[in-house]
Amino acid sequence: MVVPSLTLPIALAALTGLLGFIVGAVLQQDASYRNIQSTMANDPYIYQRRQQIFDATMFFTFSLGHDTSQLPDSAHVATLMKYGFPGLDDVHVYRNFVLSYDRRNRIAHWVCEHLESECLTETPATIVQKPAEFLIDSSIPLIFRASQLDYRNSEWIGGHLASPHNYRCDPSKYIETFILPNIAPLSHGLKSKIWTRLEAYIRELTIKCGSVYVYTGPLFMPERITFRNWAIRHQVIGMNTVAVPTHFFKVIIAECKERDDLPYMEGYVLPNADIDNNLELSSFISNIRDIEHFAGLKFYDGARRPQLHHNIQTIDPSL
Amino acid sequence: MVVPSLTLPIALAALTGLLGFIVGAVLQQDASYRNIQSTMANDPYIYQRRQQIFDATMFFTFSLGHDTSQLPDSAHVATLMKYGFPGLDDVHVYRNFVLSYDRRNRIAHWVCEHLESECLTETPATIVQKPAEFLIDSSIPLIFRASQLDYRNSEWIGGHLASPHNYRCDPSKYIETFILPNIAPLSHGLKSKIWTRLEAYIRELTIKCGSVYVYTGPLFMPERITFRNWAIRHQVIGMNTVAVPTHFFKVIIAECKERDDLPYMEGYVLPNADIDNNLELSSFISNIRDIEHFAGLKFYDGARRPQLHHNIQTIDPSL
Repeated sequence: MVVPSLTLPIALAALTGLLGFIVGAVLQQDASYRNIQSTMANDPYIYQRRQQIFDATMFFTFSLGHDTSQLPDSAHVATLMKYGFPGLDDVHVYRNFVLSYDRRNRIAHWVCEHLESECLTETPATIVQKPAEFLIDSSIPLIFRASQLDYRNSEWIGGHLASPHNYRCDPSKYIETFILPNIAPLSHGLKSKIWTRLEAYIRELTIKCGSVYVYTGPLFMPERITFRNWAIRHQVIGMNTVAVPTHFFKVIIAECKERDDLPYMEGYVLPNADIDNNLELSSFISNIRDIEHFAGLKFYDGARRPQLHHNIQTIDPSL
Repeated sequence: MVVPSLTLPIALAALTGLLGFIVGAVLQQDASYRNIQSTMANDPYIYQRRQQIFDATMFFTFSLGHDTSQLPDSAHVATLMKYGFPGLDDVHVYRNFVLSYDRRNRIAHWVCEHLESECLTETPATIVQKPAEFLIDSSIPLIFRASQLDYRNSEWIGGHLASPHNYRCDPSKYIETFILPNIAPLSHGLKSKIWTRLEAYIRELTIKCGSVYVYTGPLFMPERITFRNWAIRHQVIGMNTVAVPTHFFKVIIAECKERDDLPYMEGYVLPNADIDNNLELSSFISNIRDIEHFAGLKFYDGARRPQLHHNIQTIDPSL
C-alpha cells in the first residue's frame, strides 16, 4: 500500500518544519536580546526602558533563561548607575562617570562616579600630566557648550565635579575628568578649602569601605527678598552665559562590607563662596530630601536610615 | 533499492525544516516590530531611539517591507512631534500636547501642540465649563509638583502654556489644558494683553493655514549687573518654590499649503511683565537662535529662511 509509506515522510516533514519554526523564532529572539543588551550598554535611554523593549520583543515568550532585569558585567551604564539615574536630561556616558547635562545652564545637572579602593591605594607608575586646556565634548551641540574662555575672564575657576585625583591610577581616566561638561564655576575660596577636604574625605571613605558611589552637582537656592518674597539669583559668565551655581551638592553611597548589608548614604551642601575653613565637614551635611527638592533630582531610596548622622562620627568627618 | 525511497523524505524534511526556521524567525521579528511600534506610540524615549532598537531586533534582516523611519497614523507621539523634540527632559504625552517638565523649576521646559482649523471653525455644541481647580498630574512625583496653593497667595496668576481656547471643540481636550504641568506663573499685565493677542493671532493663522505647530515655554534671561557682570534673577513662589520666568517664548511652525512647500517658522519672546498693549505683536518677534540659546532647546531646522520677517507682514501681526 501507498499510505503508510507516505505517512511517515509527511509526519517527519511536519515535525522538522515545526522544529525549524521554533528554532528560528528562538534564535531570532535570542539575537534580538543580545543586540539590545549590547546597544543599551552605552545608551542610557534604552537602558532605562529595557523592560518595555524586552517585553515587546518577547512575543512568542520562549525563555532561554534570560533574566531581563540583569545585565552582564560588560554593561558599562548598568555598573556605573547601580543606584539609579537622579534625572534623565541629556545623559552622557564616559569611561569613569555618567553625566546629565543642563543645556540651559551649560553645566552638568549631576555627575555620577564609582570610586574603588584599588585605584586609590595603587602608587601610580607615572606622574600624569594635566592637560593645558579643558577638553571639548563634541557630542554636545556647539550652541550649548561652555568654553575655556568663559572661565578665563571671570572671578570663578573651572572646578571638576568628578575629581581627577580619584583617577590617578589610570592616565586616560584622569584626563577624561578635564572634559568641559564635568567643569563648573567654583569660588576659589570654596575650591581651595572645604571642597578639597570633602573630596579627600570621600577618597578616605573609599579606601576604608572598598566601594563608594558619588553624585555631584550644582544647586540654585532661593534667598528671601522681602517677608513673603523669595528669589533665585545667580551670575552667568562668558559669551556662553555659563550659570554660576549658588551651592553644590554631593550625595555619597558607601558600600562598607564590614558594617552591614545596607549601603550607607550621606548628603552635603556647600555654598559656592569663600567659607570659613575651620568649620567641620559634618556641619555641611544636609537632608537628601532638601537636595532633591532644590535640584529637581531623585536619589536612591533604599539606603536611607535615621541613624545616618550618627554613623558619620565613626568615619571622622573632620579630617 | 532503499536509497531513492529515503532521499526524497529526507530532502522534504530538510526543506520544511528550513522553511519553518525562516517562517519562525520572520514571524518573531514581525511580532517584535509591531510590539515596539505600539510601545513607542506613547513612549517618547523609545520613539526617540526607535532606529537603534529596530536595528537591534533585525538580526536576520528579513525584510517584510517595514519602513523603520515611518510610523503608522496611530502613533500619537509621532503625529504631535512632527517637528521634533526641542529637549528630552522628563517628557509627558497628553491627548492634545506633549510636554517636557522641569522638575527643578516645577514648570514645563516646553509644551508642543498641534492646532488644526477644523477644531477652531466648528461652533461648539456645548459651552465647556472651566474646572474649579487646576488638575494634578500624578505621573510627576509629589516632591516635584506645583500646586494651586503656590499660585493663590502670590501676585502671579497661573497661565496656560497650551491655551484652552484652542480646544473649544472638544470638552476633554479643553479640560486637559488645566493640568498643572501646563500652568506657569504669568504676570496679570502680560496675560490680559499681549499674551492673549498672540494666542488669538496663532488661532487666526491656523484658520488661514490649516495646520500650525506651537512650542511654548519659559525663559530665564540674564540682566547686566555691572559693566562686566551679568546675572539671572527670578522669583520663586509658594511652598513648592515654583520658578517665575522672566520671559516666555512661542515658536510657531505653520504649514500653509497655498504658499509653498516649506513650512513657515516664527519665534516670539514676551517679557513676563505688564507691557504696553499698544506695541505691535511683530515687535516681539525674536531670532529663534536666541530662544534656543537661553532656553537650552533645539527647534526644527528645516524651515528657517531669511525672508521670514517679511512673510509676517502678509499675515497681519497687529490684529
